[in-house]
Amino acid sequence: MIQKLAEKIKKTHAPICVGLDPMLSYIPGHILDKAFAEFGETLAGAAEAVWQYNKAIIDATYDLIPSVKPQIAMYEQFGVEGLMAFQKTVAYCHQKDLIVIGDVKRGDIGSTSVAYAAGHLGTVKVGRKSYAPFDEDFATVNPYLGTDGIKPFIDVCKEEKKGIFILVKTSNPSSGEFQDRLIDGRPLYEWVGEKVAEWADTHMGDTYSYVGAVVGATYPQMGKVLRGIMPKSFLLIPGYGAQGGKGADLAHFFNEDGLGAVVNSSRGIIAAYKQEKYAKFGEENFADASRAAVIDMIEDIDGALNAAK
Amino acid sequence: MIQKLAEKIKKTHAPICVGLDPMLSYIPGHILDKAFAEFGETLAGAAEAVWQYNKAIIDATYDLIPSVKPQIAMYEQFGVEGLMAFQKTVAYCHQKDLIVIGDVKRGDIGSTSVAYAAGHLGTVKVGRKSYAPFDEDFATVNPYLGTDGIKPFIDVCKEEKKGIFILVKTSNPSSGEFQDRLIDGRPLYEWVGEKVAEWADTHMGDTYSYVGAVVGATYPQMGKVLRGIMPKSFLLIPGYGAQGGKGADLAHFFNEDGLGAVVNSSRGIIAAYKQEKYAKFGEENFADASRAAVIDMIEDIDGALNAAK
Repeated sequence: MIQKLAEKIKKTHAPICVGLDPMLSYIPGHILDKAFAEFGETLAGAAEAVWQYNKAIIDATYDLIPSVKPQIAMYEQFGVEGLMAFQKTVAYCHQKDLIVIGDVKRGDIGSTSVAYAAGHLGTVKVGRKSYAPFDEDFATVNPYLGTDGIKPFIDVCKEEKKGIFILVKTSNPSSGEFQDRLIDGRPLYEWVGEKVAEWADTHMGDTYSYVGAVVGATYPQMGKVLRGIMPKSFLLIPGYGAQGGKGADLAHFFNEDGLGAVVNSSRGIIAAYKQEKYAKFGEENFADASRAAVIDMIEDIDGALNAAK
Repeated sequence: MIQKLAEKIKKTHAPICVGLDPMLSYIPGHILDKAFAEFGETLAGAAEAVWQYNKAIIDATYDLIPSVKPQIAMYEQFGVEGLMAFQKTVAYCHQKDLIVIGDVKRGDIGSTSVAYAAGHLGTVKVGRKSYAPFDEDFATVNPYLGTDGIKPFIDVCKEEKKGIFILVKTSNPSSGEFQDRLIDGRPLYEWVGEKVAEWADTHMGDTYSYVGAVVGATYPQMGKVLRGIMPKSFLLIPGYGAQGGKGADLAHFFNEDGLGAVVNSSRGIIAAYKQEKYAKFGEENFADASRAAVIDMIEDIDGALNAAK
């Protein structure tokens, strides 16, 4: 799957993923009204609105992009109905040949990580039958519990040709509280990065590893260092756009082959119609605004990569 | 809710929770057969088996214990059907007046943690209506992203009178890989513990804080130190029983009032009938075996606490 991601990035010239993190406050009134008219102001109504919103954005952008990153919390907050919208979204993205990065940030002790890995990336056995409940292509994983929390994910990835991104340096303001603490003179995130590099080395696709890392766009200097530590890993880069990251900051997250990173934007794309820049589209045409925002994002990053050459 | 937990522990003399972490391999054949006969070898069939298994164990133990700790991964692996069994289990435990600790180990950047906190401990708004999708009483939370990943959970706890347990030192073999690394001469888990203590201080119930910590039974020496660092926090202690922790190791996890800790056992209780010690009950009477194992666990811990006096 990591090769497919690399190939799709080369083909689209778009090392990006669209963060499908729907909040009800982003969803245009006409979609909400229709969903609530059909299902009431219920969890099922919210889930229907989320799904219709996602579908319109996917339809308007899928030909431009290699991948999407649904944040499962935004679905999970609406209970099982929300998670059904998550599943529907994942299945629809597959139909459109988009790679799905499930931003689930799971991680637990060994036997429990086995269950998460099976549910999100692999299959679970029921009697003589097998099912792939959530069926993402990649998942994000939290490293706090160490190797035996990560290993079950890697095992499933190997078997199913899927991949993971391990949290190394996250994009949020307080990420440094623990991640930046110095251990033998180097910050914790570098030690986690070293471990990712170790795992990556022994779990390779053709040119890149299917063990990648999450590194926030909001910390470009650290990104440069981490790029060096994990040369064979793809970096998943949140924090672009609404969180403050800019294309000009991102050049060092990439390798010289122009690959090795996939930049996520959520709010900046899916709620583009709320920005002054895209207001001309109007709420009705929110998906067209998203398409325009995707085109601008690709140009911003492409420009930064070319300027860095 | 933390006061309710303390009171229920005093009343039952049982500072424990039963880990409702059902694996299909634990579930007796007659329950599986019946569920598969009704729903087929499907995710719904697996979910039904899980639910019937849980229900029998809850019925056989609820009068002895203050709390349960369902591990959501064991449900999530069966997709939305599994999560419906999780919800049913939580609701049934509430009916039996059991406190439910959702072992979800969520944690993300601020805006995303808001969604997790709402979905698991709080309520989510849909139009003019509110819903509590998963409705646990406590949730476990991962600290790797720092304060802004934790704060939304604390805010919801304050509003809803619920609580969290933050992962400090986990019970698994590789937990030391990052958690034990020394920062200014002290292991990372102590720094996380210090932070928990800070949050705990400002978020108090009557005598204990509703911000607690997860500390593995498998590391008793570290437990002793962490008890000192977080005097006002309840410690949630996994790793007893099947993972190797013993009652004798646990005395130092408690405060002098005999409170401040809740010890979890999962496999050791719910699959007790598979142990030689409880084999006499037979597979048919698995829930009676679980009851006997709960009684033995309470005695083991009570003995250790008395011996330490």
